[in-house]
Amino acid sequence: MASEFGDKVKFSIFGQSHGEAIGVVIDGLPAGEAIDLNELDKFLDRRRTGKNALSTQRREADKPIFLSGVTQRDNNLITCASPLCAVIKNSDQHSQDYAELLDKPRPGHADYTAYVKWQGNADMRGGGHFSGRLTAPICIAGGIAKQILARKNIFVGAHLAECAGVRDKNFNSVNLNNDLFNAVADKSFPVIDDEAGVKMQAEILKAREDGDSVGGIIECAVINLEAGLGEPMFDGIESRLARVLFGIPAVKGVEFGAGFNAARLKGSENNDAFKISNNKVMTLSNNSGGILGGITNGMPVIFRAAIKPTPSISKPQHTISLSKLEDTELIIKGRHDPCIAHRAVPVIEAAAACVILDLII
Amino acid sequence: MASEFGDKVKFSIFGQSHGEAIGVVIDGLPAGEAIDLNELDKFLDRRRTGKNALSTQRREADKPIFLSGVTQRDNNLITCASPLCAVIKNSDQHSQDYAELLDKPRPGHADYTAYVKWQGNADMRGGGHFSGRLTAPICIAGGIAKQILARKNIFVGAHLAECAGVRDKNFNSVNLNNDLFNAVADKSFPVIDDEAGVKMQAEILKAREDGDSVGGIIECAVINLEAGLGEPMFDGIESRLARVLFGIPAVKGVEFGAGFNAARLKGSENNDAFKISNNKVMTLSNNSGGILGGITNGMPVIFRAAIKPTPSISKPQHTISLSKLEDTELIIKGRHDPCIAHRAVPVIEAAAACVILDLII
Amino acid sequence: MASEFGDKVKFSIFGQSHGEAIGVVIDGLPAGEAIDLNELDKFLDRRRTGKNALSTQRREADKPIFLSGVTQRDNNLITCASPLCAVIKNSDQHSQDYAELLDKPRPGHADYTAYVKWQGNADMRGGGHFSGRLTAPICIAGGIAKQILARKNIFVGAHLAECAGVRDKNFNSVNLNNDLFNAVADKSFPVIDDEAGVKMQAEILKAREDGDSVGGIIECAVINLEAGLGEPMFDGIESRLARVLFGIPAVKGVEFGAGFNAARLKGSENNDAFKISNNKVMTLSNNSGGILGGITNGMPVIFRAAIKPTPSISKPQHTISLSKLEDTELIIKGRHDPCIAHRAVPVIEAAAACVILDLII
Amino acid sequence: MASEFGDKVKFSIFGQSHGEAIGVVIDGLPAGEAIDLNELDKFLDRRRTGKNALSTQRREADKPIFLSGVTQRDNNLITCASPLCAVIKNSDQHSQDYAELLDKPRPGHADYTAYVKWQGNADMRGGGHFSGRLTAPICIAGGIAKQILARKNIFVGAHLAECAGVRDKNFNSVNLNNDLFNAVADKSFPVIDDEAGVKMQAEILKAREDGDSVGGIIECAVINLEAGLGEPMFDGIESRLARVLFGIPAVKGVEFGAGFNAARLKGSENNDAFKISNNKVMTLSNNSGGILGGITNGMPVIFRAAIKPTPSISKPQHTISLSKLEDTELIIKGRHDPCIAHRAVPVIEAAAACVILDLII
Repeated sequence: MASEFGDKVKFSIFGQSHGEAIGVVIDGLPAGEAIDLNELDKFLDRRRTGKNALSTQRREADKPIFLSGVTQRDNNLITCASPLCAVIKNSDQHSQDYAELLDKPRPGHADYTAYVKWQGNADMRGGGHFSGRLTAPICIAGGIAKQILARKNIFVGAHLAECAGVRDKNFNSVNLNNDLFNAVADKSFPVIDDEAGVKMQAEILKAREDGDSVGGIIECAVINLEAGLGEPMFDGIESRLARVLFGIPAVKGVEFGAGFNAARLKGSENNDAFKISNNKVMTLSNNSGGILGGITNGMPVIFRAAIKPTPSISKPQHTISLSKLEDTELIIKGRHDPCIAHRAVPVIEAAAACVILDLII
Repeated sequence: MASEFGDKVKFSIFGQSHGEAIGVVIDGLPAGEAIDLNELDKFLDRRRTGKNALSTQRREADKPIFLSGVTQRDNNLITCASPLCAVIKNSDQHSQDYAELLDKPRPGHADYTAYVKWQGNADMRGGGHFSGRLTAPICIAGGIAKQILARKNIFVGAHLAECAGVRDKNFNSVNLNNDLFNAVADKSFPVIDDEAGVKMQAEILKAREDGDSVGGIIECAVINLEAGLGEPMFDGIESRLARVLFGIPAVKGVEFGAGFNAARLKGSENNDAFKISNNKVMTLSNNSGGILGGITNGMPVIFRAAIKPTPSISKPQHTISLSKLEDTELIIKGRHDPCIAHRAVPVIEAAAACVILDLII
Repeated sequence: MASEFGDKVKFSIFGQSHGEAIGVVIDGLPAGEAIDLNELDKFLDRRRTGKNALSTQRREADKPIFLSGVTQRDNNLITCASPLCAVIKNSDQHSQDYAELLDKPRPGHADYTAYVKWQGNADMRGGGHFSGRLTAPICIAGGIAKQILARKNIFVGAHLAECAGVRDKNFNSVNLNNDLFNAVADKSFPVIDDEAGVKMQAEILKAREDGDSVGGIIECAVINLEAGLGEPMFDGIESRLARVLFGIPAVKGVEFGAGFNAARLKGSENNDAFKISNNKVMTLSNNSGGILGGITNGMPVIFRAAIKPTPSISKPQHTISLSKLEDTELIIKGRHDPCIAHRAVPVIEAAAACVILDLII
Repeated sequence: MASEFGDKVKFSIFGQSHGEAIGVVIDGLPAGEAIDLNELDKFLDRRRTGKNALSTQRREADKPIFLSGVTQRDNNLITCASPLCAVIKNSDQHSQDYAELLDKPRPGHADYTAYVKWQGNADMRGGGHFSGRLTAPICIAGGIAKQILARKNIFVGAHLAECAGVRDKNFNSVNLNNDLFNAVADKSFPVIDDEAGVKMQAEILKAREDGDSVGGIIECAVINLEAGLGEPMFDGIESRLARVLFGIPAVKGVEFGAGFNAARLKGSENNDAFKISNNKVMTLSNNSGGILGGITNGMPVIFRAAIKPTPSISKPQHTISLSKLEDTELIIKGRHDPCIAHRAVPVIEAAAACVILDLII
């Protein structure tokens, strides 16, 4: 119900941070599709923690185990028409870090809302089902989706467009190719302009020293989608993508093309003029983000997602005691990321890839 | 499929601009609920054209006719457990204004994408099913939803937070009441600060003279929702609202609480501290927009939608000929709105009310 | 929610017996499809009352009015990509026939269950939304679906396989063609063997004289579906069809192929042996009803629906007073059908056609 | 998409017979519910093979491993608000038994239809995702559902009403209690009348000796459901149950209450008269199977499912060669059940329990 999406291809996410395992079930993948495990692992690696000083040192093996939906053929896994289930074992869990939090909801987290919804019965250790860890199975699904889409010449790419107020160079909205996507993906910090990346990382480390955190904005694009995909009104491309993107922890805003800036443009500035180029219909600009009336027009589909700053900070915070119903203070001990936006880049790509795969199958 | 949303209460929009009628089917409304037709008409009136010089002079009677789902009791209609269907007759249609457009897609409209998707078989006169006119049935549904919610002490309100770069005063995110909502709703131009409203209207008229158009940003809030509503991940409040909001023509961005600005804040700035007030759990700030982990926390749910400038402008534009596959020019004759954002305010409210009603039933 | 079905093509039924109108919204029909109104009317006529002494004399004009989703081209209506809405005005309603029934639920009807579910707020005059009248919009949708399917060489046909214990000749499960379907459709009583039809009608009239009613079993088939359509488990052909068939008033059983009789066969008798015929894969028998593992195998899809005897009879019946919570008697005055099974034949075809159209689009 | 069902509580089945594991994800279970593992194992045991001479000797440990959605509290597992995933490892697989079958589809199985649908890419060893083995995760889910329902005083029970033409005593449709359900569940052969059970088992063994198979009919009931649950039309109790039941391998017919027999009754015989008993509304008979207009009336919900005879038999069968497109013969070597109907009884209960849990949550 809640933790699933998709129409012809359905993705169902399960697990909680301190349970046995987390995973995903994908029902409806086309059969006979190869899954390159090396490539998948490379993609998952873009999300992993413990790679550098920017993230927490929690070790996550994160190697997916495929329980169903595939058979082995030479060095690849091949989808075999049964629903696919992939899991990641949980380990390295420090439950003792969270004892106090059962009574004192952390500001910015789902502790309080989960407490109300499930009357205290939710397992919220490590954030429970709300933990950022649950983005790992999204990445497994998205990594698989990306491989299938790539064979159809459709590519998804993203970068950290902004972080802690520092701006990266943007995608060229009318002229994008997969080489740029790969170039960003291969970096240890997912930006186009390395200089901006250096400044961003400085800000992130500064926030860490301050016991604070920063957020970011991710720009993501899908290229080579043919025109005519999507539906009017509530099943348009924006609706399909937004529904899933807002399901990713920490996303608080989504915009397509010129987005909120379009609201500040004139019609003459925002409208994308049509033109013929190489016998194909294209637009001179791409403020629509490749979508008109919920339907693709053949230009790159471009959107941005706003990632709020990580709620867990070391600074003391005001909260309440749920048992005593009175104000109190809270210092969240233990380890936490000063920024998750750079790690969220592959998650945003993954979510988009899943939605697009479901669209074109 | 496309033009419907909802779970326990399903809303299905039908119609095209130049067809016989447009309307909505609502399946799942609780029975025995009164629909005050005067109040509904007042709400629909906030969307209507022809009221002042700001909008086109197309006359729309827009009086809903109820075909099913209600019975008459005294002066009210009462829902009676059968799916409700309400329609609005189309009239006053100038098909001849659109003849040229069948071959030359208007920039910013769905002409081209609909042409590709349905191979020229879609009735796109007046925008067809993509026309802004289809927001009228959304308003009928939303108007009914607002009345049912009001009886449960839940209120939805909105205002034009920004238009043509001019900013209105914002909602107080921790302290909102229905009186403010009603005050804005009763005005002829939906702003909190009338001075800002005057400036906005000046910009709109200026755009009209220029043969151009402007856009805007709508801020909307839902108050008195109890905590604990919604689901984690893909059925959270943000996901449910965003899916529907992006289905409204011209919406290109949606953000909740601090939204894209949250990406520029520190965690210590963005986190909403908890406090006890009158034995209730509240937050000192409301950057989360009343939503944590997809679930309400009891504070006002606040979001913003970016409305792009009306695509139909009088200025000449570059486009193509679909039949000849070559570049050409286009001047869209006839009447069109220099701004729709002020008329979209009740539409945004209506969409939110439908989603919230479905949530709490 | 309740009164809709479909995936890529969604069908939404609205209306109550004594409301203004009843109708259907179809979202997702392919654009550019012609609707032959004469042929549609012929199909709807197979369901209509007042044609002969077998049915009640309620006059129902039942001419569908198309509010949206079509444009006119020469003598046909053409689907135009907008959701289609077709309505039938209600008229000729005798509310006074039903006054007593508000307190005394009729056995076999939904009076009591609707009373409990909606606490007396449901409009149950004439059966409300549960009335057999709501099969008229199903027939409009199915009539349109049949026409679209026919152009793809897929045909749906049905007959009254059994009525009041009298059996018709059955379909030849391995060898069916549209000529037989049309032959049955053209008759005033929908049987293959006219002699059986005469006996059935005699039984029906006898029941009428007795102030009683009889039921029947409808056999329906879909031919020329290619193999490989459908899904495993809960979205198989049987699941999709059964879900919709059981939504038709009075259906109390559904079986595919040999159905309940298969339970009495040996595996060697029930298994359909494969064979090659004209380079095509076929089966020697068709006890599977054309479906293996929820997926079509290319043979005719055949199923049967059991229609219970009309609940409204003239004989005195035991019931209760809802207000006094005590036993009482009831005599249902007015007119009612001694049998609806013969009129349900096109309804079963219609439902099947809608499900199949959604499957192959 | 295909292998999932449910609305507020969603059940998603994954796995194929010869994959790593099979399992189920349940999203939406109420939190804080205890799962008694002993009781669950007792329920799963009713389905297991290798218990007696009636079934194949394939050893299946079938002990569910809970990957998520639960925490440990004393001796129980407690649902904890995260989606629950339970898996069963596959083992004891004899792939070599199936080598020939890749080219020669077995009559009555999904080999051919899966071959067409997935162009030979489906893993159909052991039946792949179509294997009866996939009823084990349905039983895990249903076993959990039964426990939650039982705490709400709602019980589900079933028995083998008919097998190989031998009839068991039927449920008393107006007077059922959980003691009878438990009595049947505790037996090694699930019948009410042990004499009938002995005859059935004799027929099953006889079929085994003949290298053949037999089918059966399962009667299932749900008691203590309050009136007013369900929806009209396509989301009624019959529709919800039938959709899921037909997703269980081998089910070819479903009927409610008097079912197909109702078609042979008079209205005066089939109508269930209402009466007041102990201040409660009840019916004198229960031909409606506890459902009127898709909504429960408070009487036991009773239905029957027809199970076709096991397709895998030892006798030679006619089939085709997919590679050569010519007729050929096939003898299915290895082990197979002469009857699965007795093992399907808990599966039918499980499916019903899942649907009912989703209904009342």
